[in-house]
Amino acid sequence: QAESGAAAEAPESGQKYKCLLVTCEGGLRKITLNRPSKKNAITVEMYNEWVAALKEAAEDPGTVVTTITGAGDYYCSGNDLSNFMGIDPSNMQEYSKQSGELLNRFVSAFIEFPKPLVAVVNGPAIGVSVTVMGLFDAVYASDKATFNTPFSNLGQSPEGCSSYTFPKLMGPAKASELLLFNKKITAHQACELGLVTEVFPEASMQQEVWPKLQSFAKLPVKSLVYSKALTRDVEKDMLHKVNRMECDRLVERWTSEDCINAIMNFFSRKN
Amino acid sequence: QAESGAAAEAPESGQKYKCLLVTCEGGLRKITLNRPSKKNAITVEMYNEWVAALKEAAEDPGTVVTTITGAGDYYCSGNDLSNFMGIDPSNMQEYSKQSGELLNRFVSAFIEFPKPLVAVVNGPAIGVSVTVMGLFDAVYASDKATFNTPFSNLGQSPEGCSSYTFPKLMGPAKASELLLFNKKITAHQACELGLVTEVFPEASMQQEVWPKLQSFAKLPVKSLVYSKALTRDVEKDMLHKVNRMECDRLVERWTSEDCINAIMNFFSRKN
Amino acid sequence: QAESGAAAEAPESGQKYKCLLVTCEGGLRKITLNRPSKKNAITVEMYNEWVAALKEAAEDPGTVVTTITGAGDYYCSGNDLSNFMGIDPSNMQEYSKQSGELLNRFVSAFIEFPKPLVAVVNGPAIGVSVTVMGLFDAVYASDKATFNTPFSNLGQSPEGCSSYTFPKLMGPAKASELLLFNKKITAHQACELGLVTEVFPEASMQQEVWPKLQSFAKLPVKSLVYSKALTRDVEKDMLHKVNRMECDRLVERWTSEDCINAIMNFFSRKN
Repeated sequence: QAESGAAAEAPESGQKYKCLLVTCEGGLRKITLNRPSKKNAITVEMYNEWVAALKEAAEDPGTVVTTITGAGDYYCSGNDLSNFMGIDPSNMQEYSKQSGELLNRFVSAFIEFPKPLVAVVNGPAIGVSVTVMGLFDAVYASDKATFNTPFSNLGQSPEGCSSYTFPKLMGPAKASELLLFNKKITAHQACELGLVTEVFPEASMQQEVWPKLQSFAKLPVKSLVYSKALTRDVEKDMLHKVNRMECDRLVERWTSEDCINAIMNFFSRKN
Repeated sequence: QAESGAAAEAPESGQKYKCLLVTCEGGLRKITLNRPSKKNAITVEMYNEWVAALKEAAEDPGTVVTTITGAGDYYCSGNDLSNFMGIDPSNMQEYSKQSGELLNRFVSAFIEFPKPLVAVVNGPAIGVSVTVMGLFDAVYASDKATFNTPFSNLGQSPEGCSSYTFPKLMGPAKASELLLFNKKITAHQACELGLVTEVFPEASMQQEVWPKLQSFAKLPVKSLVYSKALTRDVEKDMLHKVNRMECDRLVERWTSEDCINAIMNFFSRKN
Repeated sequence: QAESGAAAEAPESGQKYKCLLVTCEGGLRKITLNRPSKKNAITVEMYNEWVAALKEAAEDPGTVVTTITGAGDYYCSGNDLSNFMGIDPSNMQEYSKQSGELLNRFVSAFIEFPKPLVAVVNGPAIGVSVTVMGLFDAVYASDKATFNTPFSNLGQSPEGCSSYTFPKLMGPAKASELLLFNKKITAHQACELGLVTEVFPEASMQQEVWPKLQSFAKLPVKSLVYSKALTRDVEKDMLHKVNRMECDRLVERWTSEDCINAIMNFFSRKN
């Protein structure tokens, strides 16, 4: 049932990824985030697999258009906060530094991705899965999707180049509600703000979006790659600089009282 | 009646500002432009006090979110044109130069302001009070508010970094109507253009906006300050450069026939 | 019938342009693309005349506001693909290089144009006539107008600085549909995306737009020119750089199999 967005959680035999399902047909590559029981929260392993899957897509001559979608009800619930758990407090600084490097590598993979990259947002999207959308070429969303970047609620700060892409896209007056004030928005609101390309009714989304993407995958790949390069190359240095600044700030934030208290509260509410 | 936006004009005893009312409670600082009988037009004294009040807000450890609003029916009618009156024509060049330095210092205070800065636009806003909104983090407006930047009608040119922030925000096709062609827009139009964050019905605005801002003022201040810095620092040099160019141009414009004739016409129509 | 947009195709006696009609009255200059039987497709001759007409407008002290519109039903159907026909294949490289230089010169004329420049889009607009709109100061469109940039369908890539201006204006999620995926949009959609300033009903457009433009042409020209310079000068170097990159890419694209096949298909479908 890959077409319906409800992929099975069990990895297929021979599947090279544990947290992703990857298929490719007629030039259209589909990368499905596949931890539906955890709302597709991103573990350290999934960050690494996602980067590897983008590299594979970039290098495969048969891939024209690459899509990201989620298995189950969620698109992606963002960074798996359990990544923070079980860390020896004496190692917290070192762990935070490593996490910053991982995040930097993850976001760089989007900045550098050379072919059209499309998010098919089947449900709620949170945190870094929202912020990197500013680096996608198109975002098609279900009308049940929501978009939430609760950084300051968690004592954190923006990533995914959103501190640059969001104000550029929607202006500071709208971006601050998302980046500073934790506002959760609907798919239609995200579309008005320019973060989402088009919104589809939940019931017909899968039937409408995939044929459209299949037709895009038949366009001349060189024209697509060169056209994307023209739109992106003039700001690539800026994006890498912003990515570095954001990650350095988060390395500090993750070891701050603000963040530690917020995450402890999150887990105590949960239990 | 500070909450209702209809502050008394008489300065409170011990009040350190003559043209402003300043309060701070629960992390939320409220700076009220307080010349309601003059539609809060900005005199030389008020420019200086506004800069001082922003400095005080930036330095006060108890201030998390800072707001600007207007006493009475207007938010702010912009530069008080009587600033131009009574100047000895032989001193006009020198006066114009000093005004350019004052404006540069005023706009710089917004570029450099490190904490979330929110405009609560209770009524019509004109000129520089509109243009600096591109440097705010959020703008909440009454549905009775209007936004007007009649530069070319007055033989002048844009300031407040609007020649940079407005085209970035809404594109040249929309920005030119405001910056070149003197179009006055409603709060709803300003919201569609991204200049305004959200529009509230006049009747309920005060009851809706202040509790929202009070909740923002309880967020971790470091996350807010660092997040704002990420969104602003990469363009700070550009903003200062634009501010300088705009002020230099206005020093020339203020002594031009275009401007002198327009201002004389303004006062002859008024009398 | 210059006012109605249905200019006669025959050149007036003494008219210095063969493909354009140019009039100027009360500070308002009107440049009409005048090949209605060919949907105002741009021949090599028309590119050169358009550049000359912009130079004339820039230098004429009596011109305050300059407008571009189309004779007949179309605004402009873009590059005349018959420009590609009848070229000796052994000269294709050289021809492509010359075309790149012509395009670069054409787009530079818009980047450098110092006075307010307004498109009055009376009908469908295609290709380079759409992409350079990001360099105009205002775009008024009939509700019958459409906007189409079918680059990848033709094996080509964006020009007119659209690879920079479109993502800046509407964000990558919306710009990709136009620049990568050949989406044709309506005037109302173009207005929501910020490419169009305002949409008028076909029936009343001519009566509404021209008086508005006549009033703009009475504003102080120095304030308009200096204000436009403030909005544009800080990105002029970037625009020239983007223009050069886009033209270099098209020189490669025009001699590619993707493009040659697409153009041969276009003409075989037509015949």
